[in-house]
Amino acid sequence: MKQHQNFIENIYKELKDISKIYAGSNDILERLLKLHVNCIEALALCKQLDLISQVEGKKYFAFSYNNKISRAVNRNLFIMETNEIEKTINFISKEKLTETTPENITKALYTMAISFCSIIDLLKERDQKTPGTFFEIFACHWFSRMLQIHPKKEIDVLNLDKETKLPTDYIFDLGKNRPKIHLPIKTSTRERVIQVWAHQRVLDGVYGVGRFLGMCVCLSETKVDKKKLEVVEICLPEQWQVYQMFIAQMKRIYYLDVPNRYQVLNDVFPPINVRPYGDFFYEVQKIEQGNYVL
Amino acid sequence: MKQHQNFIENIYKELKDISKIYAGSNDILERLLKLHVNCIEALALCKQLDLISQVEGKKYFAFSYNNKISRAVNRNLFIMETNEIEKTINFISKEKLTETTPENITKALYTMAISFCSIIDLLKERDQKTPGTFFEIFACHWFSRMLQIHPKKEIDVLNLDKETKLPTDYIFDLGKNRPKIHLPIKTSTRERVIQVWAHQRVLDGVYGVGRFLGMCVCLSETKVDKKKLEVVEICLPEQWQVYQMFIAQMKRIYYLDVPNRYQVLNDVFPPINVRPYGDFFYEVQKIEQGNYVL
Repeated sequence: MKQHQNFIENIYKELKDISKIYAGSNDILERLLKLHVNCIEALALCKQLDLISQVEGKKYFAFSYNNKISRAVNRNLFIMETNEIEKTINFISKEKLTETTPENITKALYTMAISFCSIIDLLKERDQKTPGTFFEIFACHWFSRMLQIHPKKEIDVLNLDKETKLPTDYIFDLGKNRPKIHLPIKTSTRERVIQVWAHQRVLDGVYGVGRFLGMCVCLSETKVDKKKLEVVEICLPEQWQVYQMFIAQMKRIYYLDVPNRYQVLNDVFPPINVRPYGDFFYEVQKIEQGNYVL
Repeated sequence: MKQHQNFIENIYKELKDISKIYAGSNDILERLLKLHVNCIEALALCKQLDLISQVEGKKYFAFSYNNKISRAVNRNLFIMETNEIEKTINFISKEKLTETTPENITKALYTMAISFCSIIDLLKERDQKTPGTFFEIFACHWFSRMLQIHPKKEIDVLNLDKETKLPTDYIFDLGKNRPKIHLPIKTSTRERVIQVWAHQRVLDGVYGVGRFLGMCVCLSETKVDKKKLEVVEICLPEQWQVYQMFIAQMKRIYYLDVPNRYQVLNDVFPPINVRPYGDFFYEVQKIEQGNYVL
């Protein structure tokens, strides 16, 4: 396990450095795949504990090692075979999306993200930062790769006599006469999610409504009670609707493990488009073709 | 010390319970004063360590006990004599504000708040929740006392066919044909502060701009480097200005230890009224007299 840990920590450090150069590069993809193989090898040394699922229609387990247990892992989305994952990822990198499906992509990306986060849960003490930073690099890579654009992390706010740099989430600039994409990335949202809508509001205010398409990528909203070995989804759909009506409009919220109570938001007023992240790979062409209605 | 700790923890628990009944009650004030005397007695058993201050014009020290050190304490605002504090508080509770000053009130309230927070820093491990909850009860008490209103923590959002309860910060309802007060309370703000403006935006959107006066009470923005024994103020004034222009307008930000770089915001565009909390006690009469221009 120690050997795996060293390898995982080293690749993570490399990823942090090279993601600053070009977030969508093949260098990153190569390391993400190597990292994943190592995570799966390490997880094969751990036990799997079934959790009591309070989430309708979903089964969860957790990895356990040295008396510690990981976050919840969705049994139906997790794929233990690394060659399966590699196959799906190759369809993405070789631009052969028609040979796979949104469902396969969601499962492959879910497995890669949750594997790394679970290993960190087991090997580190209360480390929220490493999974968060990793997931930003990971989720940003696919946007950057598909759009062939390296994102910015701050923008100029010009306002008559004032000039300020505003730190932002990822911003993808699609060029003249096209919208830009505002992309916050979170492993889970909880009560901090209002920031996503508030940042979108600032961009709408500074540049005009519609100039930035607000999209968000999240991993899941599960919470494990480690004593009861029970898993729940923490969701605040009514609050999201209030934010969507009164702060700003987010165009897409992508999840790797879509929470049941947010899934419903697609079909009620005000609609909020909550989708599996795999759908992005097929929708992104619309954006590139100039169809921003979504 | 153990005896003080037990006493402090018990009063804290009582405060949590009785603040739900009436946040501005004499029962609470009595306990706050008793709690303070105990905190000061406990702090008298601790050493005082001078900190290297990187904050222009301000001197800071920290309490130290059992190889732990507390948060930074502003030397010019901290009063060790509990009878001094009691005297000032009595002028408030007996409604004899002309016999004291905003400066004296700010110092008394600063001392009471920072004493409790420092004791928790020294006696507990990484406990951010207790100081945060205490400061909410503490800072809310004075608003509730002066306005003679018990605040709400949620409001109805009526919107045609939808009816939702929105959890909020403290809301003081001054009655018909008068504005309401929206009061978030934070020990420090950092990057989470955008929530304050975003909640104000929701209230403006749901009820109309101007129906809620946005006011915020904070303790300080100091951060201690425990190795270097150095203190800095973490401020993001340019970001506050962007929020004030593009999300919503906050009427007042009260601090017990006003950060230098936020003090400046009173005098530039867009103006943000950042004041010592002691000023509130003299301004509140304007609100009660129907002058909401502030």
